[in-house]
Amino acid sequence: MKAFVYLGTGRSGLEDRPKPELQRPSDAIVKMVKTTICGTDLHILKGDVRSCTPGRILGHEGIGVVDSVGAGVTTFRPGDRVLVSCISSCGKCEPCRRNMYSHCTTGGWILGNTIDGTQAEYVRTPHADTSLYAIPKQANEDAVVLLSDILPTGFECGVLNGKVAPGSTVAIVGAGPIGLAALLTARLYAPAEIILIDIDANRLDVAKRYGATAVVLNGPDGKAVETVMKRTGNRGVDTAIEAVGVPATFELCERIVAPGGTIANIGVHGTEVALHLERLWDRNITITTRLVDTVSTAMLLKMLQSSYLDPAFLITHRFRLDQMPAAYETFGSAATTRALKVIVEA
Amino acid sequence: MKAFVYLGTGRSGLEDRPKPELQRPSDAIVKMVKTTICGTDLHILKGDVRSCTPGRILGHEGIGVVDSVGAGVTTFRPGDRVLVSCISSCGKCEPCRRNMYSHCTTGGWILGNTIDGTQAEYVRTPHADTSLYAIPKQANEDAVVLLSDILPTGFECGVLNGKVAPGSTVAIVGAGPIGLAALLTARLYAPAEIILIDIDANRLDVAKRYGATAVVLNGPDGKAVETVMKRTGNRGVDTAIEAVGVPATFELCERIVAPGGTIANIGVHGTEVALHLERLWDRNITITTRLVDTVSTAMLLKMLQSSYLDPAFLITHRFRLDQMPAAYETFGSAATTRALKVIVEA
Amino acid sequence: MKAFVYLGTGRSGLEDRPKPELQRPSDAIVKMVKTTICGTDLHILKGDVRSCTPGRILGHEGIGVVDSVGAGVTTFRPGDRVLVSCISSCGKCEPCRRNMYSHCTTGGWILGNTIDGTQAEYVRTPHADTSLYAIPKQANEDAVVLLSDILPTGFECGVLNGKVAPGSTVAIVGAGPIGLAALLTARLYAPAEIILIDIDANRLDVAKRYGATAVVLNGPDGKAVETVMKRTGNRGVDTAIEAVGVPATFELCERIVAPGGTIANIGVHGTEVALHLERLWDRNITITTRLVDTVSTAMLLKMLQSSYLDPAFLITHRFRLDQMPAAYETFGSAATTRALKVIVEA
Amino acid sequence: MKAFVYLGTGRSGLEDRPKPELQRPSDAIVKMVKTTICGTDLHILKGDVRSCTPGRILGHEGIGVVDSVGAGVTTFRPGDRVLVSCISSCGKCEPCRRNMYSHCTTGGWILGNTIDGTQAEYVRTPHADTSLYAIPKQANEDAVVLLSDILPTGFECGVLNGKVAPGSTVAIVGAGPIGLAALLTARLYAPAEIILIDIDANRLDVAKRYGATAVVLNGPDGKAVETVMKRTGNRGVDTAIEAVGVPATFELCERIVAPGGTIANIGVHGTEVALHLERLWDRNITITTRLVDTVSTAMLLKMLQSSYLDPAFLITHRFRLDQMPAAYETFGSAATTRALKVIVEA
Repeated sequence: MKAFVYLGTGRSGLEDRPKPELQRPSDAIVKMVKTTICGTDLHILKGDVRSCTPGRILGHEGIGVVDSVGAGVTTFRPGDRVLVSCISSCGKCEPCRRNMYSHCTTGGWILGNTIDGTQAEYVRTPHADTSLYAIPKQANEDAVVLLSDILPTGFECGVLNGKVAPGSTVAIVGAGPIGLAALLTARLYAPAEIILIDIDANRLDVAKRYGATAVVLNGPDGKAVETVMKRTGNRGVDTAIEAVGVPATFELCERIVAPGGTIANIGVHGTEVALHLERLWDRNITITTRLVDTVSTAMLLKMLQSSYLDPAFLITHRFRLDQMPAAYETFGSAATTRALKVIVEA
Repeated sequence: MKAFVYLGTGRSGLEDRPKPELQRPSDAIVKMVKTTICGTDLHILKGDVRSCTPGRILGHEGIGVVDSVGAGVTTFRPGDRVLVSCISSCGKCEPCRRNMYSHCTTGGWILGNTIDGTQAEYVRTPHADTSLYAIPKQANEDAVVLLSDILPTGFECGVLNGKVAPGSTVAIVGAGPIGLAALLTARLYAPAEIILIDIDANRLDVAKRYGATAVVLNGPDGKAVETVMKRTGNRGVDTAIEAVGVPATFELCERIVAPGGTIANIGVHGTEVALHLERLWDRNITITTRLVDTVSTAMLLKMLQSSYLDPAFLITHRFRLDQMPAAYETFGSAATTRALKVIVEA
Repeated sequence: MKAFVYLGTGRSGLEDRPKPELQRPSDAIVKMVKTTICGTDLHILKGDVRSCTPGRILGHEGIGVVDSVGAGVTTFRPGDRVLVSCISSCGKCEPCRRNMYSHCTTGGWILGNTIDGTQAEYVRTPHADTSLYAIPKQANEDAVVLLSDILPTGFECGVLNGKVAPGSTVAIVGAGPIGLAALLTARLYAPAEIILIDIDANRLDVAKRYGATAVVLNGPDGKAVETVMKRTGNRGVDTAIEAVGVPATFELCERIVAPGGTIANIGVHGTEVALHLERLWDRNITITTRLVDTVSTAMLLKMLQSSYLDPAFLITHRFRLDQMPAAYETFGSAATTRALKVIVEA
Repeated sequence: MKAFVYLGTGRSGLEDRPKPELQRPSDAIVKMVKTTICGTDLHILKGDVRSCTPGRILGHEGIGVVDSVGAGVTTFRPGDRVLVSCISSCGKCEPCRRNMYSHCTTGGWILGNTIDGTQAEYVRTPHADTSLYAIPKQANEDAVVLLSDILPTGFECGVLNGKVAPGSTVAIVGAGPIGLAALLTARLYAPAEIILIDIDANRLDVAKRYGATAVVLNGPDGKAVETVMKRTGNRGVDTAIEAVGVPATFELCERIVAPGGTIANIGVHGTEVALHLERLWDRNITITTRLVDTVSTAMLLKMLQSSYLDPAFLITHRFRLDQMPAAYETFGSAATTRALKVIVEA
């Protein structure tokens, strides 16, 4: 089968690989229908993710059709259309029993990382009963692809951890796909204000069209903090969602969070940040980190069919699996291509 | 009246001052009976607390007898024995309505800081109805003094913020008075393990006598992290309470907190700390900061009369108000005097 | 001044009364601008509310202008436009400190009940600092009147107690003003389904126009339970909100609540209901009762200015204060007049 | 093998049965070491539990040694000493993913009810990975038997649902094994008061020895309510735990619960109760029902090894499996035998 493979720092390509086989009673083999590319995949290509070794088929997102299932699988049968979650969870271990699937002792983020992933014609999914989700009939399948990772990530790591609530004031730093996913899902809790902050005016335009009540250009003048404080009556925000992953944006969050507020980190950080406890020790703030647990996937699938959640605008480009290198090229040059999410059809 | 006064960096002393008078309808004048000294008072003497200017009567803890009340005070009458809370709260502003009394717009920590405090024969207490507490008959009044600040601080900033729960594993870094207050009040939630970590073997002995299930000397060999990880089956702790206030102890907490766990900061920090998001971004942890809100004072007063909470051992020395300089000397040289809390009788 | 007065069972009328005066330092006198009538006022007229004695000026809702304030009032000044909360709260007592203002030891629901109310030219409001709310400029003042009682009641007793959440399934039994207030405010939490159930087809039409995803006529055929169960895949609803106050509607809720779900009672009941524990003891359900605490009033005021909350459609009729008897007539004959809420201008 | 079998209303006895066999990949066969009898077993014998048909081997509690496991079982191996949970949970279905194992779509309370149970030499346990628990070495195995049902039931249905908290006031109505289990586990949250109420003076004596701060004889004089109200300063209790299952005791809870308090029902009710909403609609109370989910089993196992929890006193009698009829006789005549829990060794 065709598969997109990481070949070592800076190298990748389409290869021909054998179709995967069932290994454990809880496995399923899924024939992929649509997949997409994540910012994390770009990190892997740069060599930033040590757990992912050369030869790995990439991808942890997508939808498909169940091809075969192991003897222990009771929920799915061949022919079922399913969403593949970016997180594999056994449902049995202590972290899974606490609903912290991201830290499943035999799962977590393994697809396209420590085992072969979804950017291929077929994928083996461990713990199928608790890591696949039936796709409702009539669902927009493009939108469903966004539920493998980006929507639960924005919702769980940003909105739930950030305790967004009716009437609250939210700032989201970073208007890329993840920041926009946080914007969309924050609206499920009716905050009074959602302020998007980014360095890219184009992305801020998109944010404004899809629910931001204000946008702030995080320009070289360093006035973003001042602008947010002014807009909030010098109080700051109840929730600051960090959706970039560099020290400057995290420290921006430290400066705009109100007493009693929360900084919910989504960004994947490669270096330490300065936590200014000399200013924050008595401010009653909370800081959270989280790898998405995908505990909200079933709820988000249900909401896709309501009027509250329509993420299809996040899809900006489409490719076929044999165009994977071009898909990466487009997604990786977002500043010029204005790509948010791409759909790749297998 | 006699009062202990901050006179500028490194200088302080007993002075004769006029008895305070009622200024607003919600004020009370309290004749002090017993007071104590806080680590924060030492910070003020060193010139570290800018909001406190020379000439200020120090002290934000103690018990006394109501001497007079303003026209708006409805809860207390002259003659009532009361606990003075370290936090003044109006009960009306937005932070007070959210139970965040520490950020009361006309209160917070002001006693012995921006207005005259309790290390005197009399003190004016603003917002008396919501900042004083009736002392139950038969209460041990020495123990009650510890409820002005140290016990609610350990409980709210450490135990509640740290989400200590039955069966959980707790580490407390710092076995000074605040760390010991966290230890005592953590036991109200029946954690399976409470590990105390300090550089002072004497304090660890005290901790062991009063409920620590294990103690770890944070010595120059740097093995404290290793010891904690070993004891927890390499999992780390559910709750790490920082009760020192320097970067090294905060970073120790970062290294021993388990996935899904919480670092609850109590320490007063004077400088930034390094937050290792490159290791923590995907660990599902929570970090909290808090200035005590004293929302638990009434509950703790009630528990003093039960078998669950007996903090009297924290009192190691006793003085009279006219011995205040000696009291500071003793409290400020804890390493040699083994002082924890001192009681000063007015 | 003109005032509408309860004169004993079945009797009421406009009377001339002296303008009220400040009695305590925390009082304010408010010149009423707009008021309205509540279902509870009808109960009083019928003699059902024993705490309300003949001679009482009715009314616990409305907006006005501060006329004078007591010496202890710090938040408001004469001339301020304010919302009068149906609940008076001192902010000092144990229930107030727990945010249970409805049980304030010197407040609660007293206006138009045990002290004179708002259906008059002036009203004395106790505990003014914590019982009045500044009206934002540009707010629709008709809509603001609905925040004295009906919107916080629907939200707190129905939506918050009912734990309405994104993706959940909600049934509201009773599509009168309170049920519709629950409907409107439930939408702040993006439930997947809101099913309105009533015996009045007209009210169900209104519900459908304002956000119900389904409506069920609770007709004499007794098929309402069956219809709800069918629509929910025989699972039942996560939240059943009782907004009528009779045994039949409460028992309907008992039959449609799913395992793990909640029955949130808003209805004012005059008699006991049968709780079928022989069916419910092992169903993991929660039942709540609540007199509104008005803890959400400030948030709802903020949301009025957003796109999420537009309750103005609930106002169906308008009167002047000297037309009060006609206003009661119209409001009391809702089945024929189709009245929901009336605005009475002072 | 020997097994104790329900033979129809009023009839039961020891029978010889074939050893059970693995049926599904997730099954385990456990060789029983110790079991016990539950109040529910007595209900079955009386014919009160329709789901349990004649021929059923009874019992849903006990410890044993794993004999064999299905191909899908990954956590346990033959020879492991395990606790059998009274609730079987698949870990995969929607209720299990919400931690409501009691409503597992292919599990719940099935052992000794709809499938053969533990009062036998061997038992087949479905969903073994998520329904068995490893027994820590050095644990008191008699005490562990109490964790199959009674301790998690008292803790989850009574203490957790009842929101017992440090400093709170708790009443437990019913001092039988379940009420005493609630008493023991309530102490994990350091309530200020735990009042036990029963009609049996002997059981109240036991309660007093094991942590009740007060006991109230629920005698024919009907003064129990008055006594509780007096002791609580006419305020009532924060938490009323119903551990009997008849209308009179539930209505007692309705009368002693304070505003803002909770009635946590544990009792198995056979008939409806009168819910006095005409008194309770405005009292801000919560009522909960729950079939134990056994989500706390792992925590309780851990706490057994600490000083906080020592339930061994609940064991009053011991039998061998071939004495099962005598064991039932003793347990069923608790008023005269003073039996609480019996241990039956296989």
